[in-house]
Amino acid sequence: MTPESNFAKNSAFTFSIVFSCVLAYWFGSKRPDKVSLLSTTPLSSVDTKGPKHNTSPTNLEACWTDMVSIVDKEHVSTEEGDLQSHSGSDWSSYTTKDSERPFMIVSPSTTEEVSEIMKVCHTRKIPVTGYSGGTSLEGHFSATRGGICVDFSRMDKILKLHKEDLDVIVQPALGWELLNEELGKEGLFFPPDPGPGAMIGGMVGTGCSGTNAYRYGTMRDWVLSLTVVLADGTVIKTRQRPRKSSAGYDLTRMFIGSEGTLGLVTEATLKITVKPKHESVAVTSFGTIREAAECVSRVVGEGVPIAAVEILDDVQMRCINESGSTSRTWKEVPTLFFKFSGTQSAVKESIGLVQKLAKSKGSKSFDFAKDADEAAELWSARKEALWSVMAKRRDESDHVWTTDVAVPISRLPDIIEETKEDMASSGLLAAMVGHVGDGNFHAILLFNDKERETAEAVVHRMVKRAVEMEGTVTGEHGVGLIKRDYLAHEMGETTVDAMRKLKQAFDPLCLLNCDKIVRVQKAKAGEVQPW
Amino acid sequence: MTPESNFAKNSAFTFSIVFSCVLAYWFGSKRPDKVSLLSTTPLSSVDTKGPKHNTSPTNLEACWTDMVSIVDKEHVSTEEGDLQSHSGSDWSSYTTKDSERPFMIVSPSTTEEVSEIMKVCHTRKIPVTGYSGGTSLEGHFSATRGGICVDFSRMDKILKLHKEDLDVIVQPALGWELLNEELGKEGLFFPPDPGPGAMIGGMVGTGCSGTNAYRYGTMRDWVLSLTVVLADGTVIKTRQRPRKSSAGYDLTRMFIGSEGTLGLVTEATLKITVKPKHESVAVTSFGTIREAAECVSRVVGEGVPIAAVEILDDVQMRCINESGSTSRTWKEVPTLFFKFSGTQSAVKESIGLVQKLAKSKGSKSFDFAKDADEAAELWSARKEALWSVMAKRRDESDHVWTTDVAVPISRLPDIIEETKEDMASSGLLAAMVGHVGDGNFHAILLFNDKERETAEAVVHRMVKRAVEMEGTVTGEHGVGLIKRDYLAHEMGETTVDAMRKLKQAFDPLCLLNCDKIVRVQKAKAGEVQPW
Repeated sequence: MTPESNFAKNSAFTFSIVFSCVLAYWFGSKRPDKVSLLSTTPLSSVDTKGPKHNTSPTNLEACWTDMVSIVDKEHVSTEEGDLQSHSGSDWSSYTTKDSERPFMIVSPSTTEEVSEIMKVCHTRKIPVTGYSGGTSLEGHFSATRGGICVDFSRMDKILKLHKEDLDVIVQPALGWELLNEELGKEGLFFPPDPGPGAMIGGMVGTGCSGTNAYRYGTMRDWVLSLTVVLADGTVIKTRQRPRKSSAGYDLTRMFIGSEGTLGLVTEATLKITVKPKHESVAVTSFGTIREAAECVSRVVGEGVPIAAVEILDDVQMRCINESGSTSRTWKEVPTLFFKFSGTQSAVKESIGLVQKLAKSKGSKSFDFAKDADEAAELWSARKEALWSVMAKRRDESDHVWTTDVAVPISRLPDIIEETKEDMASSGLLAAMVGHVGDGNFHAILLFNDKERETAEAVVHRMVKRAVEMEGTVTGEHGVGLIKRDYLAHEMGETTVDAMRKLKQAFDPLCLLNCDKIVRVQKAKAGEVQPW
Repeated sequence: MTPESNFAKNSAFTFSIVFSCVLAYWFGSKRPDKVSLLSTTPLSSVDTKGPKHNTSPTNLEACWTDMVSIVDKEHVSTEEGDLQSHSGSDWSSYTTKDSERPFMIVSPSTTEEVSEIMKVCHTRKIPVTGYSGGTSLEGHFSATRGGICVDFSRMDKILKLHKEDLDVIVQPALGWELLNEELGKEGLFFPPDPGPGAMIGGMVGTGCSGTNAYRYGTMRDWVLSLTVVLADGTVIKTRQRPRKSSAGYDLTRMFIGSEGTLGLVTEATLKITVKPKHESVAVTSFGTIREAAECVSRVVGEGVPIAAVEILDDVQMRCINESGSTSRTWKEVPTLFFKFSGTQSAVKESIGLVQKLAKSKGSKSFDFAKDADEAAELWSARKEALWSVMAKRRDESDHVWTTDVAVPISRLPDIIEETKEDMASSGLLAAMVGHVGDGNFHAILLFNDKERETAEAVVHRMVKRAVEMEGTVTGEHGVGLIKRDYLAHEMGETTVDAMRKLKQAFDPLCLLNCDKIVRVQKAKAGEVQPW
């Protein structure tokens, strides 16, 4: 070999290395750089293989040892029953697959422990799902990528009540019913009233509401500040305690409704308010569901001060009668339940206004409570709604699907009427109940495995109807896995891409409740129902 | 040269290239990768040279040509007077430097044009500041890095009123006063009431409020949906129109209070409400400011339904008398202005309750309006507050500094008393006025250039006091440049790092109102006042 040929060979070698380096730099750095200069994260820009977690048995076992050193052995569980109860429920519309269970449940007792847990999981690239009440409905806490479940049950205290400031600092596994029991002793209360059993952590996660939302707003209006552990274990406190602040980005509200995908809430400072001096209830029934819905539209549009208004359809009223859980027998027709609060004279005035408007829309009856006992009796029917349908399950193979949408109030009569007809013709036992003052209502469907496709189709059409009427695919239940692919139809692809950008910024490894709200990996063929 | 030595030399060369490549890969990609796996962006991880903009004359001139092709020549201005009025104001507490003016003002007329503008600026790396009413106070629209100013004055319309749904779609340069004039014709209104002249775009930007916030909440509670142009020109619409939704991250609220740093708002769907049937006003005066503040604490703590409560101190009342702008002469003592709304009987009931509580706190007088004219007359004093202090300017070299903080209501008497004493001993003409029902109040200071340091020190101590009382450095004016370095004291360094992460995610080139809310470059020595 001549020196020249040797040089030429080496030059070629060198050139190929330099070229490879340039290529590597281009693809490994420049290209992602171009993507990283964008303000959104389109799904097309995301690694097709999905997040790079490490859930190998070795890594998980090593993680078990780490967890034991943080919280002690008695607070780590790998028992099958625990894993099952922490990844799905009977009342959820999503059926958790066997592969979607966590490897273990860890129960920390402090913010610091949660931070330590997240640091380990961040280093080990192990996905994490948070768990408090477990009452959510859309597959929110299925462990789609395995990993560990952080159970907050040991963090269930009221830490500090500031009575004069009308705020209270609580831990995530405190139930709202227990909180209100305690606050009630001081003449105070916390308005958001989701399903029984819900806890503050999950209530923040779903941005929940309930019957009180019409008068008092949703969870988004009742949280002053959150302490949150981020995906890498960093602890932040979004704000101090003043009722009002314009100090920077609204991180508090960024976490509310984020379904545990941006951080784990370990403490919340909640606004509370003074219990109204006086409450009353009125119940009015109609010949058709459209008349009932039109009555709601009128009452809302005229700004009559009501505390809540709930619609229950004929099927729902029949279920309540058949369950025998309330002391009176109800007419099995579309019915509105109104709640009023304020001073005695203001309540009286409002009841009079509602009665007049109901009459103008063709109400068949109008009962109002003469005292607190009667008010409680009337309202009890509303409280029994969901359970009375669940009681109709024929056997163990029957499931209940509870779903919700919301539309601008002027479209309420249309969507309620059309959905009602659709449900009736489906052949399923299907009831309608809802917080109609917000244009929000639920469908409760009873179905068995054979009827699943029918139920899915009813829900799909209801969601589509809501979107086409300028509404939302979920008024208060949240997205989870079930409503995820509907978001782009509701708000557009670029908006979902912006949501994905937010997720990616705070949790680049997709450790926290991965796959919820936005996809981080393309759907498989046939996985998404055609619109 | 032997082949061996040649090979050795080439090997060494090759090695050095490979080594350089590895190093380049490590520093150019791996290191930033490690940072990009974090959930926050500490200032220490940011390029010390700051954002890489291109504001070279050549680039800006080429940009001028681009802008003219998007909006036509008549809607692009480089006139000195325009540049000055679009980067600062007489009433702002920040004095804009000559270097902090934009190169040109561009006035688009559609969302599409704004998107085109941002696409050009993103490609050319030119910073952008949005402008609507220009009434903000903390240096919000100073063009700290030059570039272009997007003036929304051509986008000032009400696009669609949905009367039955109680919402209205508007453009960013619509003023809230004009909006309410139009809504008033239908018996409707939009509650947020910041300073006169404020427009929807800026009101979204600062997350503003005003006297109505105690009863109705702030801007954060009255926006349903936003159309926003992001830094790279992507257009997103955060939601449709239902009153309530749990569909994904709360992008709407992410933009409210983001001071034009995350996107440019081109359309807003606002909630509106029905005008209360009846309103009244009561005015009560006290011997000391503490007594007045204690009265507010009691009224709020007892949950008496009031629409607003404002405090005006003795200095403020004197300024109003001296300005001669109201028809009556007021006692020059600490005074509370209460507003009531609701049905006639409810208002009467509430006035009685407030009168009783005021008396128990030592009120010296209690006047309430017998009719609408008297109510307007009483409230007029509150409306004249800021202008009556501005009227006291001795000459052109006098400035007015309007600042605000908020604390939990129980700390209001303490902070008001201490701040009042501090202001009195400063020797400045300094008045206090505020939306005390939210624990929020303003100090209005008159000062000339010689007195600037005294004024700065008074404001600094007031902010520090608020933070130490678990309050916020700004209740409603926003952060801008002036309150930026206080954020870490209020909420902790990691929380500010999380805010920086958010900014970086949506605007990686820091094009949109760069330097506001969070620093993206380390402060120079002496730039930050010691805490």
